Amino acid sequence: MGEPRAFRCVSCKREYEPWEHDYFCPHCGPVRGTLEVLYDYGALSRKLSPLSFAQTRRHSLWRYEEVLPVGFEYAVDLRAGWTPLYARPELAAELGLSALWIKDDSLNPTGSYKDRATAVVIAAARYLGRAALTCASTGNTASSVAGFCAAAGIPSIVFLPKDKVSNAQLIQPIANGALTLALETDFDGCMRIVKEVTKREDIYLANSMNSLRIEGQKTISIEIVQQDDWQVPDWVIIPGGNLGNVSALGKGFQLMLDLGLITKKPRIVCAQSARANPLYQSYLKGFAEFEPMTAGKTVASAIRIGDPVSINK
Amino acid sequence: MGEPRAFRCVSCKREYEPWEHDYFCPHCGPVRGTLEVLYDYGALSRKLSPLSFAQTRRHSLWRYEEVLPVGFEYAVDLRAGWTPLYARPELAAELGLSALWIKDDSLNPTGSYKDRATAVVIAAARYLGRAALTCASTGNTASSVAGFCAAAGIPSIVFLPKDKVSNAQLIQPIANGALTLALETDFDGCMRIVKEVTKREDIYLANSMNSLRIEGQKTISIEIVQQDDWQVPDWVIIPGGNLGNVSALGKGFQLMLDLGLITKKPRIVCAQSARANPLYQSYLKGFAEFEPMTAGKTVASAIRIGDPVSINK
Repeated sequence: MGEPRAFRCVSCKREYEPWEHDYFCPHCGPVRGTLEVLYDYGALSRKLSPLSFAQTRRHSLWRYEEVLPVGFEYAVDLRAGWTPLYARPELAAELGLSALWIKDDSLNPTGSYKDRATAVVIAAARYLGRAALTCASTGNTASSVAGFCAAAGIPSIVFLPKDKVSNAQLIQPIANGALTLALETDFDGCMRIVKEVTKREDIYLANSMNSLRIEGQKTISIEIVQQDDWQVPDWVIIPGGNLGNVSALGKGFQLMLDLGLITKKPRIVCAQSARANPLYQSYLKGFAEFEPMTAGKTVASAIRIGDPVSINK
Repeated sequence: MGEPRAFRCVSCKREYEPWEHDYFCPHCGPVRGTLEVLYDYGALSRKLSPLSFAQTRRHSLWRYEEVLPVGFEYAVDLRAGWTPLYARPELAAELGLSALWIKDDSLNPTGSYKDRATAVVIAAARYLGRAALTCASTGNTASSVAGFCAAAGIPSIVFLPKDKVSNAQLIQPIANGALTLALETDFDGCMRIVKEVTKREDIYLANSMNSLRIEGQKTISIEIVQQDDWQVPDWVIIPGGNLGNVSALGKGFQLMLDLGLITKKPRIVCAQSARANPLYQSYLKGFAEFEPMTAGKTVASAIRIGDPVSINK
């Protein structure tokens, strides 16, 4: 249960003992040296099957404990994941499709898919015995981290850019008792402070520089397939801002393929706002180059990102 | 599965064949003549047990199909009910309690506990072959009915008092394609129109005058008990406005007692806003009399009700 084989640097491919380093490869540094979690796929593929997954009744992503880096015994008792997959035949007919499903990840404890990531990160913090969690955020991540920390009785420290956060986005961290600090800077400025703060080993990082987030987020793929009786959809459409979620979705499908749970992968469509579409612009050039852009105003404020952190993933 | 024994008038106690009358006893009329659903408790108590309930994996209130008036085959595929019950030991300690749980019924498909009622009402409409649903509402009920109707491909007609509904409360019915009518009147005026409209037999009533709503709402009690391993809490605290939900909560516990699933009932505390507390005022007089009041302004707008419909229940 929750036994990773190694943590591997995505750049130099050096493998480390699990938990040897917290966030990145010491040779390649932050961002380039992100660590990804490897499992013993051979052993897992002998053990895991649609039948074995059907035997757990956990109403959360902890039903996939074997492919998570920490065990359920470290989980916080909120119910992240195992959200509904709705069949929408009328909408499918309207669009000329043979079938269409909607995965409603707003039905997570703090109201967003970020809870999948936080569920795993806070379990890791408990496994490692860390004293507090911190993140920079302009909304959902702070709410999610504050909510889980409140439930676990662990302090959380949240850095927000002053006057760039709505009251609604402030309510959740404050109501959940997070130490909420509004700084006279932007998100990147907050992120710099967070990096300083997490040099203290007892404060654990809950931002996407911590690649354990993806381990939680990838469970959405497994749920989609299990909830449709282990059939793989032809296409999955997902919005993209920082691009961590679409990467995690891909990772989940690849994992199932590696474990022999499925025999094909879906095409993944990453939907971007017309005013914040650097990935689409790169796609138009065959991904030959990538240019960050200044993101314009859009109603989809959560994906208003011109320079996505997870572009390489 | 979903086989009521009779529909009984709460006033004159006349029993009718199930589905013989839609909303009320023809002798006693609306409000006084509300019909309640009776089941064959003897047969059910031989069939139902904590073990039998443990065998269903439905992530919805349809796991309690046997004590609902219609069967799962008429259900709409949204996932109402089976919401999380969170243990909150820190909060319990802070309040000097040995244990405390929070039932999060906001994790329903349209965002409120009203979905429990709507799930059963729309299944009944499908069972009866009705063409459309209607309700008067100032918020959650309209959103819930519109959401379920959209999912079922059934038209919904929603009456709202003009200029007394916030934009947020308008968005859900409109986005879900309900025929949304804003009338130059108040909630009671809307309710009068709805009563006229539902004289047409093919339009089914989704307001609380339809007592099938309570059949869905009562499932919250069964969930609370099952999710704590069939232990009955000492106290349950619930907010009260129109008082239908607190009645349903009581009905759920009484049902479990009748079926031998539990051996005691909890004390139920109905929490009211200080400015909209007619039940509390009546309690202070030993329930000897009841006086409707003019409800004052409160942040808990959903329970700002001075003359609760379900006071007798």
